[in-house]
Amino acid sequence: MVVVGNEILSGKVQDSNAYFTARELRKLGVTLQRIAVVPDEIRSIADEVAYCAKTFDFVLTSGGVGPTHDDITIEAIAVAFGRKLVVHPELRRIVEEYFKGGLNAAGLKMAEVPEGAVLNAAGDLRFPTVQIENVYILPGIPQIFEPKFKALAGRFATDPYFLRAIFLSANEGIIAEHLNACLKLYPELLLGSYPRVGDSEYRVKLTLESKDEHYLTRAFDHLIGLLPGDAVVKTE
Amino acid sequence: MVVVGNEILSGKVQDSNAYFTARELRKLGVTLQRIAVVPDEIRSIADEVAYCAKTFDFVLTSGGVGPTHDDITIEAIAVAFGRKLVVHPELRRIVEEYFKGGLNAAGLKMAEVPEGAVLNAAGDLRFPTVQIENVYILPGIPQIFEPKFKALAGRFATDPYFLRAIFLSANEGIIAEHLNACLKLYPELLLGSYPRVGDSEYRVKLTLESKDEHYLTRAFDHLIGLLPGDAVVKTE
Repeated sequence: MVVVGNEILSGKVQDSNAYFTARELRKLGVTLQRIAVVPDEIRSIADEVAYCAKTFDFVLTSGGVGPTHDDITIEAIAVAFGRKLVVHPELRRIVEEYFKGGLNAAGLKMAEVPEGAVLNAAGDLRFPTVQIENVYILPGIPQIFEPKFKALAGRFATDPYFLRAIFLSANEGIIAEHLNACLKLYPELLLGSYPRVGDSEYRVKLTLESKDEHYLTRAFDHLIGLLPGDAVVKTE
Repeated sequence: MVVVGNEILSGKVQDSNAYFTARELRKLGVTLQRIAVVPDEIRSIADEVAYCAKTFDFVLTSGGVGPTHDDITIEAIAVAFGRKLVVHPELRRIVEEYFKGGLNAAGLKMAEVPEGAVLNAAGDLRFPTVQIENVYILPGIPQIFEPKFKALAGRFATDPYFLRAIFLSANEGIIAEHLNACLKLYPELLLGSYPRVGDSEYRVKLTLESKDEHYLTRAFDHLIGLLPGDAVVKTE
């Protein structure tokens, strides 16, 4: 995912689209491999999108689409793919309808796409989502980003992860060797260890994940057997 | 800034360190150019850190330091700089004191640094911040990340930005041409335009920034003169 926006880098706004996307993709069983926040600069956006499009199955961008001077994501993505900017006839029709005949140059910019881009219907929303190759171009405003993502989500779905958790009163230094031992036997297990400060209930939360439910159960039982019994506060 | 963590990419945790850092750096007058969130993988971390260290004045990393199997940031940064991992004598002393004689292999890992790394005092905290070249290695836990950042902040400070804001009842399509006209005359102005949905008070917030207070005032006055008077709800 590529988040475009000086407002995020300058701390004026806390990004919520990346967090939303991470959670939604997880539910779909899709592994999010990278989030990059880049400034409103053609070169920075183009380089990052080109890298991600080449490296991953698909890419979402958030932000920098609209009629103002700082909305340059479409132009940058055209650079990333070495394409011209062209007016998309269907998008032009939608923009003209939106501006009710008062279409100016700034508004017309909203009908431009990299040559070869296609439009994806976005549920109840007026504006479709522009796609070029494996890149989906979404706006930064969360109230529009989120329904646009949901309208696309079906095409990203594969198979979900199964998840268990263990809450411990011991610190990471005590348990690290048991985690390593468990991973030796269950190398495919996704095992996370998250210390928590200032919580009276537990000090570390372990998360165990796998797309194979039986593998997860066996790894979970094995790890529980390794950990000091009095350190386990609860499991989920 | 490089944020290391599968827990962020999988949506289990919303990152707060990047937002904190963005705000704090802005107060110091430092431009944050990039935030990358990468998974707990040596290659991903090493490539991103190497790119950022080469491209920017300094780099902060967050997360992936500690005794567990998934804490590989130090090792990855050694790879990024082509250095060996070595036990730092002073860090070993601090880790031994912390583990009170019960130091195991996992704990000893916390005393390893890329060869040539230096330690920076971190205020009241027990563990210093490891620095190699222009990279500062911080932990992911916000309660430790934040005081460690603050202990370092003095060395990043340059000169601050001055900021004004204009709140508008008109939409972006109406005002875009005035923003472009203002930027023609004041090309050094940092001008942001942020639409807001579902707010009864205003529809767009414009932010104007410059490190030169007089330049900012002139640009602000010019833009106010261009905008339709009935569209301006308030200024700050």
